[in-house]
Amino acid sequence: MITEAPCRHSRESAVVAPSCPLKREAAEAVRAIVAERGDCEIVIHPQCFLSDGHFAGPDEARLAALREVMADPSVDAVWFARGGYGSNRIAEAALADLPDAARGKLYMGYSDAGFLMAGFHKAGLNVAWGPMPQDVLRGDHGLEGGEAAVKRALDWIVRRDALGLEPAIQAPAMAFNLTVLSNLLGTPLEPDFTGVDLIVEEIGEHLYRIDRTMFHVTASPNVRRAGRLRLGRVGDILPNDVDFGTGEQAIVEDWCRRSDIPFGGRAAIGHDAQNRIVPFSTENR
Amino acid sequence: MITEAPCRHSRESAVVAPSCPLKREAAEAVRAIVAERGDCEIVIHPQCFLSDGHFAGPDEARLAALREVMADPSVDAVWFARGGYGSNRIAEAALADLPDAARGKLYMGYSDAGFLMAGFHKAGLNVAWGPMPQDVLRGDHGLEGGEAAVKRALDWIVRRDALGLEPAIQAPAMAFNLTVLSNLLGTPLEPDFTGVDLIVEEIGEHLYRIDRTMFHVTASPNVRRAGRLRLGRVGDILPNDVDFGTGEQAIVEDWCRRSDIPFGGRAAIGHDAQNRIVPFSTENR
Repeated sequence: MITEAPCRHSRESAVVAPSCPLKREAAEAVRAIVAERGDCEIVIHPQCFLSDGHFAGPDEARLAALREVMADPSVDAVWFARGGYGSNRIAEAALADLPDAARGKLYMGYSDAGFLMAGFHKAGLNVAWGPMPQDVLRGDHGLEGGEAAVKRALDWIVRRDALGLEPAIQAPAMAFNLTVLSNLLGTPLEPDFTGVDLIVEEIGEHLYRIDRTMFHVTASPNVRRAGRLRLGRVGDILPNDVDFGTGEQAIVEDWCRRSDIPFGGRAAIGHDAQNRIVPFSTENR
Repeated sequence: MITEAPCRHSRESAVVAPSCPLKREAAEAVRAIVAERGDCEIVIHPQCFLSDGHFAGPDEARLAALREVMADPSVDAVWFARGGYGSNRIAEAALADLPDAARGKLYMGYSDAGFLMAGFHKAGLNVAWGPMPQDVLRGDHGLEGGEAAVKRALDWIVRRDALGLEPAIQAPAMAFNLTVLSNLLGTPLEPDFTGVDLIVEEIGEHLYRIDRTMFHVTASPNVRRAGRLRLGRVGDILPNDVDFGTGEQAIVEDWCRRSDIPFGGRAAIGHDAQNRIVPFSTENR
């Protein structure tokens, strides 16, 4: 039962970290941006700063914080703090016995958060790919770049500002890190890709791995039902010991051709400060 | 139609390289071992030394060499030269219109060759996990180690010597590199794991990736039908930027527990000179 009307203006955002811990300086910088804007409020859940080996606290703590903000009717948007790894470990449990208040909220993030985003979208929640709080520290285009990424995300969260959208989206659209997409295929998190403008991006992989992952992803009958596949940015490619012999776009085009998926060209998303917004839902914008 | 009787004694082996090129010094060392034995013959296909970017020649050349030795009735065993990456690119085509002579042969290798081995086993061919010619160069236990690995493989190829078998096999068994297994799930190469003693090993990955891949693999309903899952050796683990917090066996046991797959303990396979033989077929030994 949906008890909340779709919220076009998310004034209260809650930040939780289902994967790795948020840096305190990132939290401070985001709080400063929010204070300066004056059009929204942000609550950074203390769980964001927990540390348990690789993760922002043990599974139980990450799940509890996520479930808490999902169930809180005063929270309009759940903003994933950062990627890394670990959201897959709690994604199914996060969706169990979904409270009514979990609906009508926006859920935003990217990278490892894609495990949650896939499952949440499949469950009918309102999901968008976009910059995360930790991105404020990105120096790839100067501190200005990281700030701009966070402002772009907040402009979407607060007022669904279309200026931040990936410019060539043909709704319905979805975006995933390629490796995350590969690892969620065949799991209960896998959404229906029929007719979807499916965008993938990658970071820190060898080209041979990108080729192997594209083999896996494009073998999926579900992925083959996508409307088209587009390639976001591929950053920090790790060197092959011998040159792979071709580039990332040629790899993706090759597997699209082999699997009869229309290749739709490049897309303006990636693990960088220029990362754009890709709403998964066509409603709730 | 099966026209050849199962061959228990493979006197003529053909080496092809469906992934990356074989080193010439490895070929020479293996030829010397074979000459000294005097109980078998080996033909190292010239395709093994081709080079095309990452691969041992373009897809067409690797496929043609493989198809050639599969169709050759004088070849008793097809021995994959080495791993690396690339056999997945030709595996489906290798199985098209299977010639009668392709049956009754042994196909042996590991690592990236797992893509072929999965599909070949599914097609009813006689497949075994085991050392490959390039392993002769392994120095992890001295040159002696690499030579011993190749001799162990030949003892299986030539006379099905049970001394080289992984010692705790409960047939039917299969063995895969964990990342290869993850990348073949959902593809036409995926075999039936029902009741199988399924062994995985890994090399050169971060623990967080092993955790993520185990999430993916153990979510598969097919993998969940395995009789048990065992863990081979996990070599050259790449450092996490913060300590992951747990080890490889705890990771595998955790995902087995979550997915209700019996964990069968450790297994004596891996990317090293001590790598043992795991025949996929229960016949044809």
